[in-house]
Amino acid sequence: MRKLGNVTVVAPDAERSAVGHAITTLVPLRVKEFRRGRELMGYAVNGTPADSVKLGVGSLLRKRPDIVVSGINLGPNTATNVIYSGTVSAATEARILGIPSIAISLGTFVNPDWRYAAALAKRIAALVLRHGLPEKVLLNVNVPNLPRARIKGIRITRQGDSAYVEDFKVGSDPRNQTYYWLAGSYAMIDSDKATDAWAVEHGYVSITPVSFDLTARQAMAGIEAWNLTV
Amino acid sequence: MRKLGNVTVVAPDAERSAVGHAITTLVPLRVKEFRRGRELMGYAVNGTPADSVKLGVGSLLRKRPDIVVSGINLGPNTATNVIYSGTVSAATEARILGIPSIAISLGTFVNPDWRYAAALAKRIAALVLRHGLPEKVLLNVNVPNLPRARIKGIRITRQGDSAYVEDFKVGSDPRNQTYYWLAGSYAMIDSDKATDAWAVEHGYVSITPVSFDLTARQAMAGIEAWNLTV
Repeated sequence: MRKLGNVTVVAPDAERSAVGHAITTLVPLRVKEFRRGRELMGYAVNGTPADSVKLGVGSLLRKRPDIVVSGINLGPNTATNVIYSGTVSAATEARILGIPSIAISLGTFVNPDWRYAAALAKRIAALVLRHGLPEKVLLNVNVPNLPRARIKGIRITRQGDSAYVEDFKVGSDPRNQTYYWLAGSYAMIDSDKATDAWAVEHGYVSITPVSFDLTARQAMAGIEAWNLTV
Repeated sequence: MRKLGNVTVVAPDAERSAVGHAITTLVPLRVKEFRRGRELMGYAVNGTPADSVKLGVGSLLRKRPDIVVSGINLGPNTATNVIYSGTVSAATEARILGIPSIAISLGTFVNPDWRYAAALAKRIAALVLRHGLPEKVLLNVNVPNLPRARIKGIRITRQGDSAYVEDFKVGSDPRNQTYYWLAGSYAMIDSDKATDAWAVEHGYVSITPVSFDLTARQAMAGIEAWNLTV
């Protein structure tokens, strides 16, 4: 991104997986500056990804950013996982603040090869800076963990339906207290080539335009027909 | 709700405001049973609203619930706040699990009068049980803090655009460390009568059908036109 302009990193100071769009209101946030020699490289925040964007834009940066790029996340953010994704939520927070944004994730949890995803992120960021994005829309980009030569193409996709099939591991802690720990495995059920999960699974880059207007307009008439009165 | 069927309460053990769709994966959850005399009334979970639904459905309840009702929240969950709402996220989690769900919130932070909201929640729950809900759609209900006689009507709405205009209060803690604490005031900018925020502000109940498919379909053609290649 440094080839496109001035970059400031504002990020959580530790892993914040699956925090969704959590923001911190009940306690204050702390910030640590990161420097390389004398140069300020960025800020580490003891909060969530969405907190980091809010605090960066609202307080740490002197100038409003032209774009916010969230990621590269280790692990895909496709299908139902988009709902839980801190990576996507950081980009959503930027878009709520009116700033064009992209989220980018790599489709693996092991042996990541960041090179193509990083190069592509820069190209997409440049396109967003040139073309802009529709109101309330951000881009959720997922990249297979493959070298560029093996990427099959780029698909503009919809959010799929795959999800974790979850259960809870019930156990006893060292103090003999019962605990419940979220477990489960990913069920890849998306066979529709129009979906993000299918694309990444089959070697394509997936770009899903994502909105934070959650209104299900097609469902409004059906609810109206209930004729609910006060 | 007890008039409609057997009710089990599964809820966070303390306030979890603005946690959005956070779920707890890095640490285990603990559960406390709540009893009235010998009768089991429900469970308190040291996690988020979405955790509570996941754990309730996945582990604590012997039978899959017919409906999940989340709330009544103290404070409205309209417009941009829907994104941050733990109340809405609990209902979303249920719908992801395939269970019809509603979120219900009261449009005040002080002097709540729960009576009409509670009566209405029961009626809407009965309607949902009778009619079902479209796939991936839940209902986000917001009720003005008024007695029934002063409610002006019920509107099926879209998510509005009002949001908190935020800044951070920067201060020094007792150990002279700088902190940043999220502050700000709500900017009610929704003048469109089709919005949830306008409805509640003007004495109407707002019911917004909400989806967890975030795909911005109307934006797909524009992104396709960038002709991005590998």
